[in-house]
Amino acid sequence: MIKVGIIGATGYSGNELVRLLLGHKEVEIKWLGSRSYVDKKYSAVYHNMFKLVDDVCMDDNIEALADEVDVIFTATPQGFCASILNEEILSKVKIIDLSADYRLKDVSIYEEWYNIKHKSPQFIEEAVYGLCEINREQIKGKRLVANPGCFTTCSILSIYPAVKEGLIDAKSIIIDAKSGTSGAGRGAKVDNLFCEVNENMKAYGVLTHRHTPEIEEQLSYAAGEDIKIIFTPHLVPMNRGILVTAYANLKKDVSYADVKAVYEKYYGKETFIRLLDENDYPETRWVEGSNYVDINFKVDKRTNRLIFMGALDNLVKGAAGQAVQNMNLMFGLPENTGLLQVPMFP
Amino acid sequence: MIKVGIIGATGYSGNELVRLLLGHKEVEIKWLGSRSYVDKKYSAVYHNMFKLVDDVCMDDNIEALADEVDVIFTATPQGFCASILNEEILSKVKIIDLSADYRLKDVSIYEEWYNIKHKSPQFIEEAVYGLCEINREQIKGKRLVANPGCFTTCSILSIYPAVKEGLIDAKSIIIDAKSGTSGAGRGAKVDNLFCEVNENMKAYGVLTHRHTPEIEEQLSYAAGEDIKIIFTPHLVPMNRGILVTAYANLKKDVSYADVKAVYEKYYGKETFIRLLDENDYPETRWVEGSNYVDINFKVDKRTNRLIFMGALDNLVKGAAGQAVQNMNLMFGLPENTGLLQVPMFP
Amino acid sequence: MIKVGIIGATGYSGNELVRLLLGHKEVEIKWLGSRSYVDKKYSAVYHNMFKLVDDVCMDDNIEALADEVDVIFTATPQGFCASILNEEILSKVKIIDLSADYRLKDVSIYEEWYNIKHKSPQFIEEAVYGLCEINREQIKGKRLVANPGCFTTCSILSIYPAVKEGLIDAKSIIIDAKSGTSGAGRGAKVDNLFCEVNENMKAYGVLTHRHTPEIEEQLSYAAGEDIKIIFTPHLVPMNRGILVTAYANLKKDVSYADVKAVYEKYYGKETFIRLLDENDYPETRWVEGSNYVDINFKVDKRTNRLIFMGALDNLVKGAAGQAVQNMNLMFGLPENTGLLQVPMFP
Amino acid sequence: MIKVGIIGATGYSGNELVRLLLGHKEVEIKWLGSRSYVDKKYSAVYHNMFKLVDDVCMDDNIEALADEVDVIFTATPQGFCASILNEEILSKVKIIDLSADYRLKDVSIYEEWYNIKHKSPQFIEEAVYGLCEINREQIKGKRLVANPGCFTTCSILSIYPAVKEGLIDAKSIIIDAKSGTSGAGRGAKVDNLFCEVNENMKAYGVLTHRHTPEIEEQLSYAAGEDIKIIFTPHLVPMNRGILVTAYANLKKDVSYADVKAVYEKYYGKETFIRLLDENDYPETRWVEGSNYVDINFKVDKRTNRLIFMGALDNLVKGAAGQAVQNMNLMFGLPENTGLLQVPMFP
Repeated sequence: MIKVGIIGATGYSGNELVRLLLGHKEVEIKWLGSRSYVDKKYSAVYHNMFKLVDDVCMDDNIEALADEVDVIFTATPQGFCASILNEEILSKVKIIDLSADYRLKDVSIYEEWYNIKHKSPQFIEEAVYGLCEINREQIKGKRLVANPGCFTTCSILSIYPAVKEGLIDAKSIIIDAKSGTSGAGRGAKVDNLFCEVNENMKAYGVLTHRHTPEIEEQLSYAAGEDIKIIFTPHLVPMNRGILVTAYANLKKDVSYADVKAVYEKYYGKETFIRLLDENDYPETRWVEGSNYVDINFKVDKRTNRLIFMGALDNLVKGAAGQAVQNMNLMFGLPENTGLLQVPMFP
Repeated sequence: MIKVGIIGATGYSGNELVRLLLGHKEVEIKWLGSRSYVDKKYSAVYHNMFKLVDDVCMDDNIEALADEVDVIFTATPQGFCASILNEEILSKVKIIDLSADYRLKDVSIYEEWYNIKHKSPQFIEEAVYGLCEINREQIKGKRLVANPGCFTTCSILSIYPAVKEGLIDAKSIIIDAKSGTSGAGRGAKVDNLFCEVNENMKAYGVLTHRHTPEIEEQLSYAAGEDIKIIFTPHLVPMNRGILVTAYANLKKDVSYADVKAVYEKYYGKETFIRLLDENDYPETRWVEGSNYVDINFKVDKRTNRLIFMGALDNLVKGAAGQAVQNMNLMFGLPENTGLLQVPMFP
Repeated sequence: MIKVGIIGATGYSGNELVRLLLGHKEVEIKWLGSRSYVDKKYSAVYHNMFKLVDDVCMDDNIEALADEVDVIFTATPQGFCASILNEEILSKVKIIDLSADYRLKDVSIYEEWYNIKHKSPQFIEEAVYGLCEINREQIKGKRLVANPGCFTTCSILSIYPAVKEGLIDAKSIIIDAKSGTSGAGRGAKVDNLFCEVNENMKAYGVLTHRHTPEIEEQLSYAAGEDIKIIFTPHLVPMNRGILVTAYANLKKDVSYADVKAVYEKYYGKETFIRLLDENDYPETRWVEGSNYVDINFKVDKRTNRLIFMGALDNLVKGAAGQAVQNMNLMFGLPENTGLLQVPMFP
Repeated sequence: MIKVGIIGATGYSGNELVRLLLGHKEVEIKWLGSRSYVDKKYSAVYHNMFKLVDDVCMDDNIEALADEVDVIFTATPQGFCASILNEEILSKVKIIDLSADYRLKDVSIYEEWYNIKHKSPQFIEEAVYGLCEINREQIKGKRLVANPGCFTTCSILSIYPAVKEGLIDAKSIIIDAKSGTSGAGRGAKVDNLFCEVNENMKAYGVLTHRHTPEIEEQLSYAAGEDIKIIFTPHLVPMNRGILVTAYANLKKDVSYADVKAVYEKYYGKETFIRLLDENDYPETRWVEGSNYVDINFKVDKRTNRLIFMGALDNLVKGAAGQAVQNMNLMFGLPENTGLLQVPMFP
C-alpha cells in the first residue's frame, strides 16, 4: 500500500483527490492537511465524506508528516510548494505538486506571470511536467512531478499532434477556452457567488491568464521553436468541465482523415484520450467525473484553418485524476489504477 | 417629483430598487448609500447600471442626507435602521425600512429571534406593517413603514383569506417554502458560492428562521387568536423566486369553488395578486421580474386538508417592488405607478 | 459472473444502471434493450459510454433474450413489465422491475392511480417490494423484485422508524418532496426543456402523484393501520437529487436524543443510510452519484411535531443503485458490491 | 397608435415581443398568430401573461389579418415569411421579419446555407438589413425590414468599426460565440432538455452555422472586399445572453486608446451600445432583459492581434428588442420608445 498525504485537502481539487484515492486499491490516506481547517473533521468541511473519512485536518508540518507517507500531493496556492520543498523532504517522499510552482522551466517567466519570487528554483530542472500521455517515460520513477493545469492539459492534448507533425503554423494558434466554476476554487469571493455566476457568461484574465506561458512552453517544445499564442478563458455557469475550441492556420492541404491518422498515431493506444467519430464534438457532459479527454477537430477548407476541440473534467483529468495517474507512473503501478470511473450523466 | 435616497443600495434589494425607481416617472434618485463601497461608482459595483446611473456611493450620514430627500429606503442588515432612526429624521423624511426592525409589534419577540437589542422601540407602535393588499388604508400618508419579508409576503398572502374566514384551523398551518439564492444576499460566503448552491437543494434555519414570528403575528391578527406554525425555508439553485407550499386542516367541508369565492372576495380587485385557474399551479418563472403574486390552492378530501400555493419574485414583490408600492401609497400616487413590469420569461 | 440484460437501457435510469454495472466486478452486461433506438450503437445515444460500451441496442424480444442472461432489469414505462412477464420467463431469469408494476399489493389501487389495466396480476403476490433496508430477508433469493420509486425510497426511509415505534400519528404525515429533473425522464417535452425548468420552481401532480399510494401502503404496514397522507412533489432546476421534508404530529413527548436512539436501532448498522449529526441537515449535493441516503429530523416543541429530512440521488439509491443492491441480495453477493462510489462534489 | 400583429407569437422571441410591446405606449397588439396553438388562450401557453393578455392564438391567415394592422412581425421558421409575402400584403402593412428570409442579398447563398428554395426573391432587393446602428437611415420609412440574427448582431457590432477603419485584416477574423439556450427555441427536442444542457458546454454547427454568411456579407460591405470568416457557436447552460469573443490580425500598430477612439466615433452617441471602460469585459448578466450591447476589445502586442468582446440579450437586442427598434424607425417614432428597460440583475 502506498501511504499518501495531501496538503491543501480542503480545496475542490483536494476533495476530488480524496474521492479518487478512497477508490484506489493500492493507496492508504494517512493524513489530510488544511491550514484553514486545522483540527476540524474533514467530513464537516466536506459532508460527502461523512462516515467515509474520519480524519481531522492537520496543520502543514511537512517535516513531521513526511515521515509517515510515501507521497505527498500539494493542492495548494501558487508559491506554497516551492516554499516548503527541500532536499531532505525529497529524499523521504515523492511530491506531486498540483500548483504551478514547477511547471515552467524558465523561472523568470514564472516570476513574471505569477508575480512572486520562486523559493526553490533548484528543483525546477529535476521536476517533470506531468502530462502523462506526452511525458510518460520521464515520469516513471521520478520523485517530483509538476501536475499540469486544467486548461493546459485540455489545450495541449487537443493541439499537440498537429504541432508535432507540422500540420499547422504554431504561431497562429488561438485558444478559446471555457471552464466550469469549480476551477475558481472554494474561496469566498463575491464574483463566485451563485447569483453572480448563474445566468452569466464572461471572459476573464484576457491576455494575462497564467496558463498561457505553460501552454506556450509545451507547444514550443513540440514545434521546435518559440511560439506565442492567444489564450482566452471564459467562466461558464456549471460546476465541472473544460471545453477548448482552438484555431490555427494549416501549413498543409489535409483532409479530416489525414489529421485523424496523425491523432491516431499519437493517441490511438491511450486509455484516457477518446478520439471521437468525425461528426461528434466534445461536450463536457460526456466526461464528467472521469479521467477521459474527448478530442476532435475540423478542417475548414474555406479559410484554410484547423479547428481543435477538446473536453475534460477539470477536477479529474485537469487536476486530481491526472495527479493519481502520475502517482501510478511514479510508483510503477498500472497507469489506470483507480481511474476507471465511468463518466456520470446526467 | 419625489426625491429618494437609498441606504444599503449595493445589496441585491438595493440594486432592484434602483432598477425599479429608474423606471418610475414620479421619482428622482438623489443619493445611494453604501458603507461597503463609499466613494466607488455605483455602476462599478453593478455594471448593469453602466451609463444609466452616474452616482458615487455615499456614506450613511443620514442626518445630512435626510435634508435632500422626501423618502429614504433602508435596505440594510437587521438593527441598522433602528439604530439611526430618531424623531428629527422622521420629521423630515418618510422611511421605508426593508429590514425587520419594525415588523414585529412585540419587541421581546424581535429581540429573542434576532438576538439583538432594539435601539428605537419607541417607533414600533407608529410603524405600519407594509403588506399593501391587507393594510392599504393604514399605509396611506404614513411616515414609517416596515416592508414585509419575502417569505412572509408570499406565505401570508397565500393563506390569509382562509384564516380570516375561518376555513382552516390556523394552529395546524405548516409552511414549506423554497427560495432562490438572491434572498441570501451578496455577502461573500462559502455556502453561497456557485458550486455549493448549484446542483443542490437543502432546508436551512429549520425551526429557527426569523420570518416565523412575523408570519405568526400577522396570521394571529387574522385568526383572532395566538397561533404557532411551522415554517421551513429551502434554498433552490436559481437566482430569483419564492414558492410557498402550505398545509392546514380544514374546519369546514368546502369545495374548490367555495375557497375560490373567499379568495375572490379578498383579492378579486387586486392588481398584483393573480388567482390562477383551477388546474394551474404557481411557478416562479411566471412572475420573474414583476410585482405579481400568483396564488392557488387545492382541497384534499382524502385527508381533509387545504393546500396553499403561492409564487412571487423575492426581489420585487418580496422586497423592492413592495417597497415602491408602499411609497406610492404613502405619497398618494396610484398604487401601481412604476410597477407594471411584465414578467420576463424565460 | 452474473449475466445481465437491461430493457429500457436508454432512459436515464437505464444509463445509470450501465454506469454502475460496468464497475461491478461480478457482472457481465449481455445486452441492452431499447425500443426507441433499436440497432443504434448505445454509445451514440449516451456518448459518456464511448469506447466503454460497444453494444448495439436490441429490440425487446424478451423470450429470446431471457435465454442469455441470469437477470433482467426493466427500466420501462408503467405497464410494460406486467405486459411481458410470464411463468416461462420467470422460470429462466430473475426480474428486477424499476417500474411500478409490482409495487402495490392491491391491484385495484394500481389500476386507479395509474389508469391502466394490470396485465399479470398473478405475480403481484410473489413480488417483493425491494426496499432493501426494510425487506432485506424477503429479497434474498427471490426471482421477482419490485424496485421502489425514488420519492418513495426517500420518504419511507426518512419516516419509517418513527411510524414503526409509534412516535407519531401516522395519519398526520405530510410529505413535501423536491426532485431534480432527471426524475422526469428523457422524453422530449416542452415542460422539461432547459429554459422551462431553469430559474423555476413548481409543485406538480399535487394530490395525484402516483408515489402517494406506494408510500401509504408501506407506511400502513409499519403503522399497523391504513393511513392516508399528503405527498407533494416539486421540480427543482438541478439534474439529480431528491430532498424530502416531512411533518407529523408527535404522539409522545420526545427529545432529539430519544428519536435518534430509535433511528440508530433501525439504521445504525446500515451501510447506505447515514444518520447525520444533530445540527446537520441532508442536502442533495452530499450524496450525488452515490447510493447513500442522508437522514435527520428535528423535534418542534412549539407545535409538538416531528420534522423529517432525507436526501438521496434519485438515479442511484432512488433507482439503479437500489436495483443493483437488490440484485446483490437476490444472488447472495455482499450487498454493497459495486455500490461504494464516494459521493461526487461539486 | 400603431396596430400590431405577430405571426409566430408562441416562440420565445414572440413572447418577448409581446412583453416589450405591452410596455410600448404607442402600440396596440391586435392579434397573435400561432399555428401550433390555434384557438388556445395565449396566457395558457405563456402563463407570465395571465391577466395581462386576453387574446386567443389565431391561425396565420395573413390576407385577412393584414387588414387589421399597420405592421406584422414574423417570428417564424426560415422560409415561412418568404412563402406568404406578396405585393398586396406589402401594400397594406409593414413587415418586420425576424427570420433569415430577407437578410442575405445573394439568394443562392441563402438557398445553399438554408437548404430551401426562396419563395419570394423579388423582395430581397427592397428589404433593408435592420441593424439599426449601421443602417439607420435606410430603415426609416421602409416597409420591409430583415431583422438580424442574434449572433450576427453581437458579432457585427463588436467588429464593425475595426473593419470599416481598416485596423484589422478582415480575412483573419475568427468569431467564437456563446449563446444561452433560449436561442435554440421552444421546440421539444431531447438535446434541449434541462438535463442535457445543464452542466454542459458544447460547440455546435461548427463551420456550418447559418449566421456565418450573414456576418460575412455585412462585414464584406464594411471591408470593401469579399471575406470569409470562421464562426463557431457554443451552447451555454443559461437562459439568455450571447457573448462574442473574436480575434483578428492587426494591420496597424495601435494602442487601446487608438481603437477606443475609432469605436467612439462610430458608437459614441448610440443609446444602446455601451463601450465599457478599459478593464471591464462584457458579461451577459449586465445586459439581461435590456436592449443594450456591451462592447470592449483588447490589443495583444505579443501576437499583434485585436480581441473583440461583445454581450447582448439574444431575445432583446438579438431579436425582439431590435425588431421594436426597427419598428420605431420605420414609423418615425423616437428610436428608444419602449426600449429603456434597465438590465435586470441578478
